[in-house]
Amino acid sequence: MDVRAAVAFEAGKPLEIETVQLEGPKPGEVLVEIKATGICHTDLFTLSGEDPEGAFPAILGHEGAGVVVEVGAGVKSLAVGDHVIPLYTPECRECKSCTSRKTNLCTSIRATQGKGVMPDGTSRFSYKGKPVLHYMGCSTFSNYTVLPEIALAKVRKDAPFDKICYIGCGVTTGIGAVIFTAGVEPGANVVVFGLGGIGLNVIQGAKMVGANMIVGVDINPSREGLAREFGMTHFVNPKEIKGDVVGHIVELTGGGADYSFECIGNVNTMRQALECCHRGWGESVIIGVAGAGQEISTRPFQLVTGRVWKGSAFGGARGRTDVPKIVDWYMDGKINIDDLITHTLPLEDINKGFDLMHEGKSIRSVVVY
Amino acid sequence: MDVRAAVAFEAGKPLEIETVQLEGPKPGEVLVEIKATGICHTDLFTLSGEDPEGAFPAILGHEGAGVVVEVGAGVKSLAVGDHVIPLYTPECRECKSCTSRKTNLCTSIRATQGKGVMPDGTSRFSYKGKPVLHYMGCSTFSNYTVLPEIALAKVRKDAPFDKICYIGCGVTTGIGAVIFTAGVEPGANVVVFGLGGIGLNVIQGAKMVGANMIVGVDINPSREGLAREFGMTHFVNPKEIKGDVVGHIVELTGGGADYSFECIGNVNTMRQALECCHRGWGESVIIGVAGAGQEISTRPFQLVTGRVWKGSAFGGARGRTDVPKIVDWYMDGKINIDDLITHTLPLEDINKGFDLMHEGKSIRSVVVY
Repeated sequence: MDVRAAVAFEAGKPLEIETVQLEGPKPGEVLVEIKATGICHTDLFTLSGEDPEGAFPAILGHEGAGVVVEVGAGVKSLAVGDHVIPLYTPECRECKSCTSRKTNLCTSIRATQGKGVMPDGTSRFSYKGKPVLHYMGCSTFSNYTVLPEIALAKVRKDAPFDKICYIGCGVTTGIGAVIFTAGVEPGANVVVFGLGGIGLNVIQGAKMVGANMIVGVDINPSREGLAREFGMTHFVNPKEIKGDVVGHIVELTGGGADYSFECIGNVNTMRQALECCHRGWGESVIIGVAGAGQEISTRPFQLVTGRVWKGSAFGGARGRTDVPKIVDWYMDGKINIDDLITHTLPLEDINKGFDLMHEGKSIRSVVVY
Repeated sequence: MDVRAAVAFEAGKPLEIETVQLEGPKPGEVLVEIKATGICHTDLFTLSGEDPEGAFPAILGHEGAGVVVEVGAGVKSLAVGDHVIPLYTPECRECKSCTSRKTNLCTSIRATQGKGVMPDGTSRFSYKGKPVLHYMGCSTFSNYTVLPEIALAKVRKDAPFDKICYIGCGVTTGIGAVIFTAGVEPGANVVVFGLGGIGLNVIQGAKMVGANMIVGVDINPSREGLAREFGMTHFVNPKEIKGDVVGHIVELTGGGADYSFECIGNVNTMRQALECCHRGWGESVIIGVAGAGQEISTRPFQLVTGRVWKGSAFGGARGRTDVPKIVDWYMDGKINIDDLITHTLPLEDINKGFDLMHEGKSIRSVVVY
């Protein structure tokens, strides 16, 4: 079938809106009409050419929401008309990772997904007779896409696509890191490095679970207002304090963070986030993605005296199990997505969304088909 | 009173056996007759002068066992005749750390202990009228010593001093890291870097809790035999394998370690220990003490994909609560201490014990008074 897609033909070039051919779902696969998709830094990272695993031509986009149009043979958990959120981290519930109960990083289709193809090793997309790659197993920058059944979370039908698409990546990444990765408990002191979209979602996750102090750290003072609306209780601008930020946070929190979250992708702030943790138990969670080849460092004494260094991907959330719950939290008013979606665009203007993100003018831009 | 002690008059010099004066216990303090003491690498580290916090003259030793001889005013939990193990990590049960339930690193007397004095800021030891410092709050290289009540674990009276003294540091550090810090569960695959005394205790801790594979890593092939006796199931000599040790261990364990332990104090093996952990959930615990100023590094991707980096001090054990249990485990035959104590010496030969350790000829030497 013909579909409308924003195609990334090569690194460093704008996306091009084209009519592309999409094959129907093979066994175990599902055809989804995408109704809305967020534009995420990871799409920008890949499009820029900095992603060493980026491959072209491809249809980017991994933060969508839509409706099931057709199911392939053997698909049991989904039916035509179901509302779904695509999952770049699938949940097969059968692999060693899923059955470990210790991680959300399902490995059942990792190898093919990383290569931009479906589990059978081929792409469903083509342009002028030549294959176009899938991206993160989702390719939500197309108004129709095909995904494996295990990479779709079924969600309630009354939730608006143009909001819950953000749960497909940013919301879950931030809130999930608090709830699923760190397990922040009521009364804990939380420190958040970076007050972009992920940081704001960490903040509202911390507020939701009853954190005590929620300290936001950012060198951009214009971030303070919205962060306070989302639950930040204290703002630290490293450019405006005397001395080093670690010592400042340790003093502010009366000994250090119980939990800290790095939402920037900077290896220096990753170190600060660890070292501002409380001696004996403070846990630091890396969410941001650092540049290729960059490394984090610290003195081992930081760990021997009780700090824990960990990371989070997709917020530690199991997509099919947890994403529907987060949609419920949104619909119940427990979390705020509306105020994070600063721009809504038609597909034709998708490159404007990339520009807004690049310039730091948007929290999240959403393409509505 | 006059006591016999091995005094460290200055860094880099052998200990000298002298008659030293010891004041009786002040309120909240306890006079203990030390019956036996292990000689630990930490004593060697301080005596060598490499410990930036080392201060002299001091009476070293922190791995002892003995009998209460006198209690100061207000001491309630101990009485004359009680058998005790001194604790360089006390357990006051009242400070923020103890009441957090999240750490064993009691902070109630940390400041004074670090300066080599009792909580009131003075030393009980003197030589020729001048103060001699305490060490790690213990000073077990003296046949009598004074400690705060909160720094003594009361243990059963039928346990032999010349064996359970090792529980005062090495045994608890190794076994505790498995049980209290990592929480290794039955069936887990465990990798241990360094098969000295700490590594052997990690191995027997892993065996005790029902680990599946217990992989030992050491460049010294002579360590293999004893390690196998303690429960090691697979031996890896990095000098004898092709390719890098991380890839080798990941393959050997079918995906990586569920838990790894670094028992050497080398920042390069600390990195290997982290990176050989299983994607999604593997946890690496640093036990070894690195040289001053050295740093650990890795790519943050290692953490974002689910590995956890942490450390352990005194095995995460709460001294007064957990040390008596470990003494029970020894008396019940659940753990083996006897085969780790390779040498027993009188106080006069204590410098021989340091030589044996320095030359790698002993697992543990114990001084019996």
